[in-house]
Amino acid sequence: MLQQHPLTLDAVNAASRTEFAVQLGGIWEHSPWVVERAADARPFASVTALKVAMTGIVRDASPERQLELLRAHPELAGKAMLARALTAESTHEQGAAGLTRSSDDELADLAALNAAYRQKFGWPFILAVRGPRGIGLTREHIIATFRRRLQAHPDDEFAECLRNIFRIVELRVDDRFGITLDAGNRVWDWADDLARHHTDTAGQLTVTYLTPAHRACAAELRGWMQACGFDDVSIDAIGNVVGVYHGTDPRAARLLTGSHYDTVRNAGRYDGRLGILVPVEVVRGLAHRRERLPFGIEVIGFAEEEGQRYGATFLGSSALVGRFDPRWLDLTDATGITMRAAMIAAGLPGSYEAIVGLRRDPANYLGFVEVHIEQGPVLNDATLPLGIVTSINASVRFSGEVVGMAAHAGTTPMDRRRDAAAAVAEVILATEERARQVPGVVATVGIVDVPDGSVNVVPGRCRFTLDLRAPLDGLRDAACADLLREIAAIADRRGVVCDVRETMRASAAPSDAVWQRRWENAVEKLGLPVRRLASGAGHDAMRIHEAMPQAMLFVRGENAGISHNPLESTTSDDIQTAVEAFAGMLEALAGERR
Amino acid sequence: MLQQHPLTLDAVNAASRTEFAVQLGGIWEHSPWVVERAADARPFASVTALKVAMTGIVRDASPERQLELLRAHPELAGKAMLARALTAESTHEQGAAGLTRSSDDELADLAALNAAYRQKFGWPFILAVRGPRGIGLTREHIIATFRRRLQAHPDDEFAECLRNIFRIVELRVDDRFGITLDAGNRVWDWADDLARHHTDTAGQLTVTYLTPAHRACAAELRGWMQACGFDDVSIDAIGNVVGVYHGTDPRAARLLTGSHYDTVRNAGRYDGRLGILVPVEVVRGLAHRRERLPFGIEVIGFAEEEGQRYGATFLGSSALVGRFDPRWLDLTDATGITMRAAMIAAGLPGSYEAIVGLRRDPANYLGFVEVHIEQGPVLNDATLPLGIVTSINASVRFSGEVVGMAAHAGTTPMDRRRDAAAAVAEVILATEERARQVPGVVATVGIVDVPDGSVNVVPGRCRFTLDLRAPLDGLRDAACADLLREIAAIADRRGVVCDVRETMRASAAPSDAVWQRRWENAVEKLGLPVRRLASGAGHDAMRIHEAMPQAMLFVRGENAGISHNPLESTTSDDIQTAVEAFAGMLEALAGERR
Repeated sequence: MLQQHPLTLDAVNAASRTEFAVQLGGIWEHSPWVVERAADARPFASVTALKVAMTGIVRDASPERQLELLRAHPELAGKAMLARALTAESTHEQGAAGLTRSSDDELADLAALNAAYRQKFGWPFILAVRGPRGIGLTREHIIATFRRRLQAHPDDEFAECLRNIFRIVELRVDDRFGITLDAGNRVWDWADDLARHHTDTAGQLTVTYLTPAHRACAAELRGWMQACGFDDVSIDAIGNVVGVYHGTDPRAARLLTGSHYDTVRNAGRYDGRLGILVPVEVVRGLAHRRERLPFGIEVIGFAEEEGQRYGATFLGSSALVGRFDPRWLDLTDATGITMRAAMIAAGLPGSYEAIVGLRRDPANYLGFVEVHIEQGPVLNDATLPLGIVTSINASVRFSGEVVGMAAHAGTTPMDRRRDAAAAVAEVILATEERARQVPGVVATVGIVDVPDGSVNVVPGRCRFTLDLRAPLDGLRDAACADLLREIAAIADRRGVVCDVRETMRASAAPSDAVWQRRWENAVEKLGLPVRRLASGAGHDAMRIHEAMPQAMLFVRGENAGISHNPLESTTSDDIQTAVEAFAGMLEALAGERR
Repeated sequence: MLQQHPLTLDAVNAASRTEFAVQLGGIWEHSPWVVERAADARPFASVTALKVAMTGIVRDASPERQLELLRAHPELAGKAMLARALTAESTHEQGAAGLTRSSDDELADLAALNAAYRQKFGWPFILAVRGPRGIGLTREHIIATFRRRLQAHPDDEFAECLRNIFRIVELRVDDRFGITLDAGNRVWDWADDLARHHTDTAGQLTVTYLTPAHRACAAELRGWMQACGFDDVSIDAIGNVVGVYHGTDPRAARLLTGSHYDTVRNAGRYDGRLGILVPVEVVRGLAHRRERLPFGIEVIGFAEEEGQRYGATFLGSSALVGRFDPRWLDLTDATGITMRAAMIAAGLPGSYEAIVGLRRDPANYLGFVEVHIEQGPVLNDATLPLGIVTSINASVRFSGEVVGMAAHAGTTPMDRRRDAAAAVAEVILATEERARQVPGVVATVGIVDVPDGSVNVVPGRCRFTLDLRAPLDGLRDAACADLLREIAAIADRRGVVCDVRETMRASAAPSDAVWQRRWENAVEKLGLPVRRLASGAGHDAMRIHEAMPQAMLFVRGENAGISHNPLESTTSDDIQTAVEAFAGMLEALAGERR
């Protein structure tokens, strides 16, 4: 079934329905109906649009058809599978991952996993073994994924299998069109290099502010920027890596972009870094073509956003908008080292004056854009590689404690209790209920604890936290007021005292309409549906928002969008699409400015 | 209004309504209607019956009348109070507590507390300043109580004020009748001595198995038993203090009674010990009168019930029924000392053979009775000094963990969450709901914890415990089955996995009908209503139940029945009533056996 000549988009768009079915024959080996329907969606503006159209067809199909698709899939390299007649392609794919070279013991293991999986879910385990980079997962990785997913909820696993089929299809389409994903692969490899070589803690990815690993990341980024053809690359007084690619006129106003290179503990490899590496790759392309735009591009790798080492967050972007608090220099880390001392040890000035000097004059900038991995499931569910951020959500956090009356669990009748945990249970469900009422509002009780609780004591105290976010300040405030009122009513009804203290409050940072539209245009130009979504997480753009217009572009994450976790992942296909959208956005902007 | 001659029960019962009102005039100084109604409840079989009748009238009055009663009470020794016209009696009572000798500063403090209290509750702070022993509380104690109760829920504090009025009335009645409570005071003082002089930890009462304080308690109990006229007193191989008072025939079968003298950490002074000291006092009375019954009495101070030092519980009573597990000897305490080594260090044999020898032959015993402080609010609410236990509740405990999916609190839409804590919140409310459906069933989620929870992470795991008790095994099993089914349904609906493991199960120990009736008869003979209740807590009687018939008598606790807490308290009036009930029960039993 392998094609001799790569397909072209023009050929696909011009083909008859029958020819189209032949062109894409084997891509959906067990479900030709997908290709039949995709024929009606032509013409496609890009190969990505073709992929998105096909996966959208399956996404919107009935659960019965989806299950049929799953059940038609061969089992993963177990004995049962080896006994089956396989298509040449899937044998090829699994062979690349080394699975066909498994020892007998490994095969037996895999057979046992397959049996347990089929027993639990009723369909075969489906994994795109060529992985997010298309070069194949290791056997260890595959087995670990199998074991992990065997624990999943059937609904989640059903969706995960569909996603893996989509990934398999994506890779097959790339092969059929002879697509090499140079940009996407390069960025993927950079992120892989950063994650593999620099960490505070062996065995996991942790890069906190100004540690040796953090400094090494900065040096690596600086080197890549230099090699990619930036005109001016430096590391500033706060540790930000700054690369400037001048416009036609070096004095021209610049587009500011970037994200952070520090990480949470045991992090994923894309959170923050993707927003540095994508524009670096875009500039690499410009420099390679010796192309100058009517504006400069300033890419910043922000040194710090996560607040892991010193508690204070957004250090890098705060400096750029003149919001760096001088008291932060005296904060100490867990070992007692002050931020100032850490700066000096890292070869930075360690003085507030130097940091004040980093403030950017908004007059010199067109605006700020930030690319970021979504860190959530929305794009995954929508089977779309990119999404346009409408707003960074407003948020508010509370720390609460209910005080009731500790009492003997055996001797205290139900109607004589003042159970603090039961009151918090009501708070949790009320929180969930209130958030569900308004799309886009999310609320979470993340910490629940009965201090010194005991199996046989009615809880006299129960602590909890509340995190509430909404796309608009008003939505947040309305939900917040309702919830606080409800908490007071619960406490009153139960005869307990509930103390709730606000610990954090941040205003929404709505995207600038013009810049958001620029991202939308770039995505539309690739022939992709525009999916708008709010950002539930805070980002450097939230801080830069205080000084200039901003808009963000989200890139789909694998594994249901999990983030702040080693399972955070995205494909080189999606990264390539992000690079193309960024380049397209620059091109359109250049047209506007000429 | 002080009476020249003490009242007698006969005089009160024979009086006209007008005479009765004069006899008890001033007892309810602000509410003569209570005495008016009490006149209709005559004749009273005991002074205690009179007290119970009067407090019952107030207990059953409308909340408006009760509030009137509270509001009529003078404020506690503040400047405002001093300016008031007081009855001679309440000045006398407060004077005994040293309050009228307060310095100006203390008076100002008290005035501030009074003002804050009245502001919060709308009535004056009411405290029976003569306390549980009738000899007056210290100033420090009074102020601490004031500060503590200022934090209470208004409903609880309302009830607590009524209880204090009842206590004031009780003491006034004692005075009016010239009652001295010899037995009640002696037992109160013994409990006070034990608690003051012997503890593992200064500043609190903690007596764990075989510590020096524990050994000293045993020696003290032995000494008291000897002084009280027991025929044979010893400390056995497990550390139980055993006192035997022979019947007319020393070979006659014995009544077995007792409770434990070890404590939980930071304990109250009556839990366990009351059940040793009450029968010791009863035997003291018999020996003093040189009275022999047609059966022997064997009083045991069980060395261990709470399981604080070695985890294993009911060591003392287990030995008596041949259920001491030899493996317990190898258990180690927190410092690594084995139980065997602790026994040898305490001068005990430390051998299993010696413990096996403690097993009692049921043929030599009539049965087992145990007096115990209630450790709950039932008798307090019922305004009754004594209650008859119908059953020691069946129980079952579970340790549970919900595994959902940890996710970013900002980026994960509400309908994409698998929030483990929200599932546990539903479990908590379902537990509460199910227990409420059947009187006597109690269920508690005592531990709730999101491991490594964070304000901004949707809980991926949540641990909890479940403690379920019911008067009958069948009621427990039905509630348990319903709850486990409900937990499974919650988990299923929410797409989380809930693992629930049973950690403990104990059958109900229903009281022997004949022995329960003996307690009821004794309580009735005092002219008191029979209040039956299940024991929610486990007791030594639960273990002895395996070998012979048993029944327990509960004594009211002050402070809403709080236990396992330094606030655990009972009055010498209630103890006196328990001694009288015990003695009455023995007398009736002697009649049966003659």
